[in-house]
Amino acid sequence: MEYFDNNPRPPSLDVHSETARTFIEQHASQGRRVALVTSGGTTVPLENQTVRFIDNFSAGTRGATSAEYFLESGYAVIFLHRQFSLLPYARHYSHSTNCFLDYMTFSSSGGVVIGDEYQHQMGDVLAKYKNAKQENTLLLLPFTTVNEYLWHLRDLAMSMQPLGPNSLFYLAAAVSDFFVPADRMVEHKIQSSEEFNSLHKPGEAGGAEPPAAHMEGKKLVIDLDPVPKFLKLLVDRWAPRSMIISFKLETDPSMLADKARYALKKYSHHLVIGNLLATRKYEVLLVSAGGEKWLRLPENRRSRSVTKLQDGVDGGDHEVIEIEAWIVPEIEKLHTQMIEKGDPRIRDGA
Amino acid sequence: MEYFDNNPRPPSLDVHSETARTFIEQHASQGRRVALVTSGGTTVPLENQTVRFIDNFSAGTRGATSAEYFLESGYAVIFLHRQFSLLPYARHYSHSTNCFLDYMTFSSSGGVVIGDEYQHQMGDVLAKYKNAKQENTLLLLPFTTVNEYLWHLRDLAMSMQPLGPNSLFYLAAAVSDFFVPADRMVEHKIQSSEEFNSLHKPGEAGGAEPPAAHMEGKKLVIDLDPVPKFLKLLVDRWAPRSMIISFKLETDPSMLADKARYALKKYSHHLVIGNLLATRKYEVLLVSAGGEKWLRLPENRRSRSVTKLQDGVDGGDHEVIEIEAWIVPEIEKLHTQMIEKGDPRIRDGA
Repeated sequence: MEYFDNNPRPPSLDVHSETARTFIEQHASQGRRVALVTSGGTTVPLENQTVRFIDNFSAGTRGATSAEYFLESGYAVIFLHRQFSLLPYARHYSHSTNCFLDYMTFSSSGGVVIGDEYQHQMGDVLAKYKNAKQENTLLLLPFTTVNEYLWHLRDLAMSMQPLGPNSLFYLAAAVSDFFVPADRMVEHKIQSSEEFNSLHKPGEAGGAEPPAAHMEGKKLVIDLDPVPKFLKLLVDRWAPRSMIISFKLETDPSMLADKARYALKKYSHHLVIGNLLATRKYEVLLVSAGGEKWLRLPENRRSRSVTKLQDGVDGGDHEVIEIEAWIVPEIEKLHTQMIEKGDPRIRDGA
Repeated sequence: MEYFDNNPRPPSLDVHSETARTFIEQHASQGRRVALVTSGGTTVPLENQTVRFIDNFSAGTRGATSAEYFLESGYAVIFLHRQFSLLPYARHYSHSTNCFLDYMTFSSSGGVVIGDEYQHQMGDVLAKYKNAKQENTLLLLPFTTVNEYLWHLRDLAMSMQPLGPNSLFYLAAAVSDFFVPADRMVEHKIQSSEEFNSLHKPGEAGGAEPPAAHMEGKKLVIDLDPVPKFLKLLVDRWAPRSMIISFKLETDPSMLADKARYALKKYSHHLVIGNLLATRKYEVLLVSAGGEKWLRLPENRRSRSVTKLQDGVDGGDHEVIEIEAWIVPEIEKLHTQMIEKGDPRIRDGA
């Protein structure tokens, strides 16, 4: 594919690829299903020595939360995530309004301990985390740019082919639709004052094309190329026997269902999960060849807080549910059907 | 100023402003110096319901680290930071390659405790953190967008005026030079396929100007306006009696000194700290009316790791130094001179 000829292979891929192959072999030999969960936003750097970049909104909550439920359902999980976005288990204590040190206190003997009021929940989370480490069922692989993401996705998909239908792709990362091709990237920080910009010669990017980001008078103008439709390639070529689930995030409710249906039809994969920016924590639309289905948490089971630690009390008398606790079992069921009855992809005549 | 007439006051400002005023009054009455430390990158949202945004590279290391040294030097610190960027004290355990849960273990009685090997350093950090909380010397105020940043900076500066020369601005945040004015912002996610874009009427942004981000064929084109030169306003109007320190981050070594000198001359404040993306962790250039000075850590005292936890061993036999441990005392000295001898701003005839 032309994209991979023209955009550099990330240096981190060699080590990640090797680690992933070992991980996959272990679980293939144990007959365990493997889910590749992607998570967090991708960046589009505007300079090679990156000072400015375009980003897609995502803290990584959907991916990190879902990964925990895949692990609970017996999957091994490759967690391909934006560096410093939320991680499975650790998510309960990071990106919170409390500082992590607020959970700590000094014991009477002067040692650092977790406060009594946090012991119960942290013990629960820590036990699950340690179990995943011990069983080696969770592999964390970080990316930052959309280029790193695409190279990793292709490589991991190829490595997962020996798993056959026991492999699953849960593409929760917020991947940019646009990027700056390597030959249109400037080397240095784009200068805002014209006098300094003249120090950089035009055409510095080295390509025949003009740089993607440049000054026009006092304005910064950026023009971005479309990212190739990698989902088509994943479905048809990189992972032809895997179950594939993609996401559609929209802000306009009137477009959501149409966009989700359109994506399923266009890529002929198994499931599109549609969600709206404003309501994504408590409702999603599942669109598959088998039909459409809304999953909606009852109002009194929805979390109203940002941090997981306070969730237990948020629903009043009722325990709060994370919507991923409903999404993942739905997927597991579809995956089992697919494995038992053969591939239900819509192109196969549903 | 026109900017504040045309771009909306962030809802978070009311509460932050009130909290800051109480904080400032406490320290004014105790005769303590107050430093406003800004930290992390600012975002430039491309839609009102933000899916995509432009960001400036910054984990917040400079700001979070410096804040700790200002506290050690006896300053009270208002830490105006990008949400989820590094925080003073917590930074030692976040954004690390280790998951935070790796520091935890179960005691023989089943309680969650910090592992023995981490007790010493964590006890140190926790004691300082608890001290800052007890003395109420550290106020954490988060922002996300460049608009939130600018509104907060102006408001806090006004609130700090009663401190007179006992106030200091340490502007370590990576603030965007460009932004999307409110009247050129589209409401919804910009669609990459043309068929869906037609669902949104042109001119949706409501302004006379065309939207800042729009599709041209298959390309996404973004044109951004320059952010007004707020440093000029801060120096001349919002904080005329304060000590003001700004930063210049460059990627091209040949431009650094010129850019730093140019900024000092243009804004007539006290100090510009120049740094290069590649070497910023161990060398900076201080440019003031009194002259220029490089601070450079010896090679064997530089950290080679990302995480602070391993720093102790990184320099081999020599203890690793953070360059902020050198920067902040230099500033404290200049600040004392300024308070004792009157304002040494270069416009005052140095």
